[in-house]
Amino acid sequence: MKRRLDVFCEKLQEENVDAAFINAKENFFYLTGFLTDPHERLLGLLVFSDGKEVAVLPAMEKAQLEEAGFEGEIIAYQDHEDPWESLRKFASSVHTIGVEEEHLSHGRAKQLFMALGVSEVQDVTEMLDRQRAVKDEQEISIMREAAALADEGVEAGVAALSEGVTEMEVLATIEFEMKKRGVREMSFSTMVLFGEKAGHPHGNPGDRRLKKGDLVLFDLGVVWKGYTSDITRTVAFGEPDEQQREIYETVKRAEAASLELSRPGRRIGDLDQAARNIITEAGYGDYFPHRIGHGLGINVHEFPSMSHLNDDTLQPGMTFTIEPGIYNPAIGGVRIEDDVLITEDGYETLTKTTKELRIIE
Amino acid sequence: MKRRLDVFCEKLQEENVDAAFINAKENFFYLTGFLTDPHERLLGLLVFSDGKEVAVLPAMEKAQLEEAGFEGEIIAYQDHEDPWESLRKFASSVHTIGVEEEHLSHGRAKQLFMALGVSEVQDVTEMLDRQRAVKDEQEISIMREAAALADEGVEAGVAALSEGVTEMEVLATIEFEMKKRGVREMSFSTMVLFGEKAGHPHGNPGDRRLKKGDLVLFDLGVVWKGYTSDITRTVAFGEPDEQQREIYETVKRAEAASLELSRPGRRIGDLDQAARNIITEAGYGDYFPHRIGHGLGINVHEFPSMSHLNDDTLQPGMTFTIEPGIYNPAIGGVRIEDDVLITEDGYETLTKTTKELRIIE
Repeated sequence: MKRRLDVFCEKLQEENVDAAFINAKENFFYLTGFLTDPHERLLGLLVFSDGKEVAVLPAMEKAQLEEAGFEGEIIAYQDHEDPWESLRKFASSVHTIGVEEEHLSHGRAKQLFMALGVSEVQDVTEMLDRQRAVKDEQEISIMREAAALADEGVEAGVAALSEGVTEMEVLATIEFEMKKRGVREMSFSTMVLFGEKAGHPHGNPGDRRLKKGDLVLFDLGVVWKGYTSDITRTVAFGEPDEQQREIYETVKRAEAASLELSRPGRRIGDLDQAARNIITEAGYGDYFPHRIGHGLGINVHEFPSMSHLNDDTLQPGMTFTIEPGIYNPAIGGVRIEDDVLITEDGYETLTKTTKELRIIE
Repeated sequence: MKRRLDVFCEKLQEENVDAAFINAKENFFYLTGFLTDPHERLLGLLVFSDGKEVAVLPAMEKAQLEEAGFEGEIIAYQDHEDPWESLRKFASSVHTIGVEEEHLSHGRAKQLFMALGVSEVQDVTEMLDRQRAVKDEQEISIMREAAALADEGVEAGVAALSEGVTEMEVLATIEFEMKKRGVREMSFSTMVLFGEKAGHPHGNPGDRRLKKGDLVLFDLGVVWKGYTSDITRTVAFGEPDEQQREIYETVKRAEAASLELSRPGRRIGDLDQAARNIITEAGYGDYFPHRIGHGLGINVHEFPSMSHLNDDTLQPGMTFTIEPGIYNPAIGGVRIEDDVLITEDGYETLTKTTKELRIIE
């Protein structure tokens, strides 16, 4: 945490921001190690550019913040107390305040500016997004565990396939198995889609029953110790026909092409372009309507956006998804998605499930 | 939807607000019937006090908004387009704008005010909260279904109890059964707590194994067609001792006392006080640390707060929880919670599971 705080304060100094008020629970967790969601109650961390920290949170959560190792000042308020009042004593030292413009509500911004009497406001959302995009050892170690659980989720799904089973039944089995392993929350609504249902990039699992000849798409992930995973695998139920095989192999080649370029210094947009070129050359360009992936960490969608327009370059410690797909309601859909970590000289996929086409009988 | 819009516009006129910009997905759903979460993308509904509506949403969601019956103007934007630009043409007619101060981010507020060139801003959060607190027939009918599913969740949990089973295993079974019934999302993290674990009002289910003599607390709910349910039942695993029975009967009497007062015109705070008096007189006043309940609807916690300080009165159509509890780590915990609807002349509990002490052998 100390290292994360130091890096952030260095940035604040560079940008001439006297202090930043952190309001998003993800950023509060990132900087303090304490993950909490007090809903409508105020949670905040005032970080001064010299490293001084003041946390504001409901009194009943104070002990947990301290247990997480927080050593700064704490404003722990009861429901009948006004935490903004307690923040006033820091007013004199803050001229320019940094806020997360997309997370801080208009109502809270008004109260904050009034309490601190600030003159200038600067958005620090991207500053934190960029810092969070590069994971440290502790984060990577948790994300390995989260990815391993996602692998197990796919296996649970594959094991649940049988003729006539519904998408929702398979989905329920997957989440049941995850719960038994201690997972409290999936990182997004689990997708299990059969046949033509997988032919839409954002289908909804329902009562569709599995039949021979269907492609089956699983897209799932878990929240684990505050971090997320996100995997997609597509398998064939019964012998696939030629067109299904061709689509599958095209997506697999597209994913491999993106991974091939995954190393420090590479332009992010190139990863999308490489996969897109392969899919387009194979004649399926119209059936790949989304970007190649997204950053992954505390949020299941975070910085960076893995779009063909992104001119930023990859750095060691970055984690993101690579997930090309081809969707055609007439044939079905195929997507293959891995969680990728940029290493010192290349990449590692945190998700390990095989990408060979599996035929389930 | 038309009726909901009319009521809202009447309020805007009363408060001299020319137009309101609705940004919270719950309020957008309430007024349009279309439930969506475009995450970082802009979703908004500009409602003029004369009833004119302009929806702003990503282009790919336009068809679904229309299918939901929306008849106003639609600004459907692509990712490379600036929706605020399209809102500019409405600038001349808006002097005072209403916003949801707690939901609209500081960044979006700045863009909105710039686009519309507004002079005055008024918070309409509570206006909508109060309107949403009184449900119409369609809402009540969905909430009945949501509550019935919660009842089934408790039964699934009771059926899964056996000596040595863990809290997480029972929790997984409950959610598995809910998924099989088509539930895509629980309304909050399901609670299954055994013995001393139930002695904390906000425990975390884990590896604790069930043994004879434990009280077992279930707290769960579902999201169903955009609406929530929330039920708590406590059962005994094996013969309960005298103190457990006494706590159970005290909580049961406290809940009955609150329900007794649940009718139109009654002061909301009295419901909390009635339950609190019974628990205090029985000597457990220090072990009931929370309010008696909360409003229930699209959000699992919404208006009104069922606190002893609330001077508002109950109205037909209001839906909320009544959930007294006694928590003592040395003995365990008991909570009984129902979803309550205020009718023309009294109340109805939407949750129907028995409140007699059940002894599971």
